[in-house]
Parts: sequence; C-alpha cells; structure tokens
Amino acid sequence: MTAETFVLALDLVGTFVFALSGAMVGVRHRLDLFGVLVLSFAAATAGGIFRDLVIGAVPPAAFADWRYIVVPVVAGFATFWWHPRLRRLHSPVLVFDAAGLGLFAVSGALKALAFGLNPVAAVLLGMITGVGGGMVRDLLVTEVPSVLHAEVYAVAALAGAAVAVAGHQLPLPSAPVAIVGVALCFGLRLGAIRRGWELPVAPRAGQVADDEYNDDRTAGG
Amino acid sequence: MTAETFVLALDLVGTFVFALSGAMVGVRHRLDLFGVLVLSFAAATAGGIFRDLVIGAVPPAAFADWRYIVVPVVAGFATFWWHPRLRRLHSPVLVFDAAGLGLFAVSGALKALAFGLNPVAAVLLGMITGVGGGMVRDLLVTEVPSVLHAEVYAVAALAGAAVAVAGHQLPLPSAPVAIVGVALCFGLRLGAIRRGWELPVAPRAGQVADDEYNDDRTAGG
Amino acid sequence: MTAETFVLALDLVGTFVFALSGAMVGVRHRLDLFGVLVLSFAAATAGGIFRDLVIGAVPPAAFADWRYIVVPVVAGFATFWWHPRLRRLHSPVLVFDAAGLGLFAVSGALKALAFGLNPVAAVLLGMITGVGGGMVRDLLVTEVPSVLHAEVYAVAALAGAAVAVAGHQLPLPSAPVAIVGVALCFGLRLGAIRRGWELPVAPRAGQVADDEYNDDRTAGG
Repeated sequence: MTAETFVLALDLVGTFVFALSGAMVGVRHRLDLFGVLVLSFAAATAGGIFRDLVIGAVPPAAFADWRYIVVPVVAGFATFWWHPRLRRLHSPVLVFDAAGLGLFAVSGALKALAFGLNPVAAVLLGMITGVGGGMVRDLLVTEVPSVLHAEVYAVAALAGAAVAVAGHQLPLPSAPVAIVGVALCFGLRLGAIRRGWELPVAPRAGQVADDEYNDDRTAGG
Repeated sequence: MTAETFVLALDLVGTFVFALSGAMVGVRHRLDLFGVLVLSFAAATAGGIFRDLVIGAVPPAAFADWRYIVVPVVAGFATFWWHPRLRRLHSPVLVFDAAGLGLFAVSGALKALAFGLNPVAAVLLGMITGVGGGMVRDLLVTEVPSVLHAEVYAVAALAGAAVAVAGHQLPLPSAPVAIVGVALCFGLRLGAIRRGWELPVAPRAGQVADDEYNDDRTAGG
Repeated sequence: MTAETFVLALDLVGTFVFALSGAMVGVRHRLDLFGVLVLSFAAATAGGIFRDLVIGAVPPAAFADWRYIVVPVVAGFATFWWHPRLRRLHSPVLVFDAAGLGLFAVSGALKALAFGLNPVAAVLLGMITGVGGGMVRDLLVTEVPSVLHAEVYAVAALAGAAVAVAGHQLPLPSAPVAIVGVALCFGLRLGAIRRGWELPVAPRAGQVADDEYNDDRTAGG
C-alpha cells in the first residue's frame, strides 16, 4: 500500500463516518429516505466542497470522484435500515469521527497550501474542511451547529491543521508531520470527549438582563 | 421558434414559477417587500448558482443573464400585490412547479455533462439544480426544507436527470431524450401530488426512546 | 495616504464593525469562544466570499489577504472579553455599521463591474456583499435574517450600489461617485434608524386565515 493509497483510504473512512453522523441526525428527525441521504452527503462533503470552491479546485472532489458520492449513499442506506444497531457502535463512531476530523483538517490545509493560499488561510480552510459538513448538517434540520457550543472540536481541527502547515513551511518532511497533525487533533478530541474539556463562554454581565442585548443587534454585515 | 428558444422559454417559465413559490413563502412569513424579493430570487436561482459554481461556469447564469434577475423581481412584486388572487391558482402553480422541476433537473444535468463532469455527478447536480432553490428558500425562514420530508419530489428530479444523462451516454439524440426526462419527472411529481406517494421513513426501534438518540450526535463532518 | 490606502482602511473598518455585530450575536446566544469567533468571521466576510466566488475571484479576498482573517479574530476576542462595555457603544456601532454597509455595497458593485458583470448583476452583487454577512450570521443561530424584515437596510445598500454602477457606466470620475454612493447608503440607513422608516408588508387578505396559506407551499425551486 503506497502512501497515497493510505491517505485516500483514510479520507474515504472519514467520509464514511461523517456520512453516518449525518444520516443518524436525519433518522432522528424522522426525515424520509431521501432526506437521510441528503444529510449523509452534506455532512460528508460540505466542508470539502467549500474548500475546493474557495481554492478554485473545480469541480470539487465530491463531484469529480464518484467514490465521494457512493460512500455517503452506502452510509445513508446502512443507517436507514440498521440504525438501532448502529447506536450500539456509539463509542467506535466517536473514535472514527475524531480520526476523520483530524484527517480532513490536515488534508484540507495541505490542499489549500498546494493551491497557493497563505499559511493563515490554509489553517483556517483546513479547520473549515473538518467542521463544515457538520455545520451544514445541523443547519439543514434548523439546529444551531453543535460545533458552535460543543466541547473542544473545532479547536482540535485547528491544532491539527496548524501543525501540518507549520511543518510544511519549515519545511519538514510532510508525511510524518501530517501524521503528527492528525494524531494531535485525534488526541485533543478524545480528551475532550472523555474529560469534558470545554471552551469558555463569555461571562454574563451581572447587571445586564438578557433582553437588553437585543438592541445590540444590527442587520448588517 | 428554434429548439434553443424553446428551452430558454421553458427555463424562464420554471424560474418564474419557482420565484412565485419563494415569494408566497415570504408573504406567508410576513416579510417586508425586500424579504419577499429575496425569497423569490433565492428560490428561483439558488440551485443553478450552486451548479454553476461547482462546474466552474462563472459568473453563474443567474448573474450573467439579466433575465434571471428580472423574472424573479416581477414574480416577487406580482405575489406581493396579488397574493390573495394567486391562491386561487394553487393547482396551476403546482403543475408549473412540476414542469419547472423536470426542466431544471434535465438542463442542469446536461450542463454538468457539457462541463466534463462524470455521469453520476451530473445526475446529482441535475437533481440539486431542481431542488436547491426550494431548500435555500425554506432555510431562510428557518424551516426544515420541505423537500427533506415531503412527498416524492427530489426522486422525481433524480429520475428525470438520470434519463437525460443515460440518453447522452448511449448516445441517443439529445432533444427527444431530454423531453422524456422532463416528462418522467413531471409525471412522477403529479402522481405523487394526486395519489400521495411518499418515501419511507426509517422504522422507529420499538425499545428506543427518542431522547436516547441524542447521544449519537457528534459535532463532526 | 493614497486613495487606495483610504479605501482599504475603510474596508477594514467595515470588516471590523461587521465582525463586532457577529460576535455580539454569538455572546448573546451563549456560544463558546470559538462560536463567537465563527460568527465574527462569518458576519464580516460571508458577503464578500459569495461575491468573489460568483465573479471568479478565487481565492476570495477573505482568504487571500490575512488582514481579513486577523481583523474578525481581534473583534471576536474584544467582544468576548469586553461585551458589557461594548453595549455602551451601541450608537457608535450602528453608525459604523451604516458606513460599513455603504462601503461594502459600493466596493462590491465596482469589483463585480471590474470582473465583467453586467450593470444589473453588479448592483445586485454589491447589495449582497453588504447584507450577506448579516444573513449568514443570523442563519447560524437559526434566526430569520433580520435584513428580511428589519427597517430599510438592504434598500440602502441597493441605492448605494446603484449610484456607483450608474456613475461608472456614464462614465463619471469613479472616486467622487463612489463617495456619493457610500454617503447615500449611509444617509438612508441613519434616516431609517432615527425615523423608523420601514418597507411595506403585504396586506393580509381579510378573509384568509393564516393556515390556509400552507397549501400554497410547494417543495420546489
């Protein structure tokens, strides 16, 4: 197995696991079969599609390579029919999800560098590649994306992408650095799950009632 | 009238009808005039904009051709002022909507093929062209897109796009095949409306309470 | 200070103010630090990212120039720590927001013209550049975008963009016309805030109960 095959295999595993997470949300919201497949595809590919549009890699890999279409479809059907059994795999799914997150973040950042983006933008795009699919998945069922208030998740992706980009800039040999980046993201994410690490929330100003905030809202941007 | 003029006319009719559906949702949500126009434009063009960005056809037709801007604006104003009357046209609007869906799916798939996408991706993009506008329309008023749980809708678009792509690959003469694709989508959609055809929903596992599912949710993707 | 530096400075001020509005919404929704930064970045850059993807200017400025990443991060951290104090700056923030709206609308429209879009599309894209970030910000916390039902906001952006495009087509010297466009948008927006100008809402049909409208909804588009 060459290094390239190895990365592709990991990438498709990540796609499969993210597709499972999307399909499970669809089943939970009582969507029909098609709705489940849409959430499966969106969760697995939205981050990468956004990255590819931004760097000008059109058509995005999700459309250029049929495997990125077939894998979410298989994951969607599997979830649709076997979702009660999949629930028992809760723990393994979280582990795969953490691995997929690390891989998407690192490969996304390296792809952005290869298309000439500056290092800061590459780290940002790597993180978006990792978390974007989950955001679109949640928005499609009109929930605030869990990544915005969940335990350490995007920060793990950010750290993995930053390691990969830093190694590339020095430069260090890319394969070992990529593995370190994936491992760092993976470790941070598992630590967050097991120990409940969370990011801080802004302190409420003691004298400020919630509804007074409403005035701060402008339509703009 | 040449074949090209015919397709353009159908495309603009589809744009108009989809724009009506967007504007009606805006009026129903008590949006102001501008909000109604935004929903009108989004419903009519979002699917095509996404398709064009994915295949690299920039600027998208919705921005390159002023007719795709004027038609939604006209539809939006018309709905804003005459929406009580439009309600009486409920049945005709559904019929036009079904026709527009078929046309958008077929023309979207053929445009994707023309830009070099593989057949599977072309079918997928054709379907997205057909249903994308309605998804964005619903998300803008923070509703779960009706296509995710409505009666057979996206599947009709998928069937129409698949026929067009299959005919193109064989190859068969494109005009008759395109008409068959549009007609198939149209027929499936009308059948679904009249006879209440629906896609299956995943069976609830008897012993599983709803809230237990919450654990399956991960932030990822 | 050259004219170009002046425009860049204004653009970054607009980015900063829009980032503040995003971060404040994040704090109000009790998002964690990362969530606040996402809303900050999204509010400041989403409109421009969409514009750049549509006109084929990839990678979008928000990724090509590190300042468009750093400014929202600074605004996000500042809001996170000092949001009670920022509330006292309510009025100045609205004024900056109005200025940012005008500048984004005008610069967005001129950039679209420079990339060869037709005048109607350029006005539309200018407006989208101004209001797009706020729409994405609101959708991420699953609220109907305030621009869809707020007081005159998008219309001010539309007017500013239209002046800039009209001046460019005549042609008049671009710098003074751009300033007039920004000023017009700014004035309309401040007038709307101070005097409560609003766009009309479609009249309810007297005999029509709200729930009867539900039938008008189709899945399409």
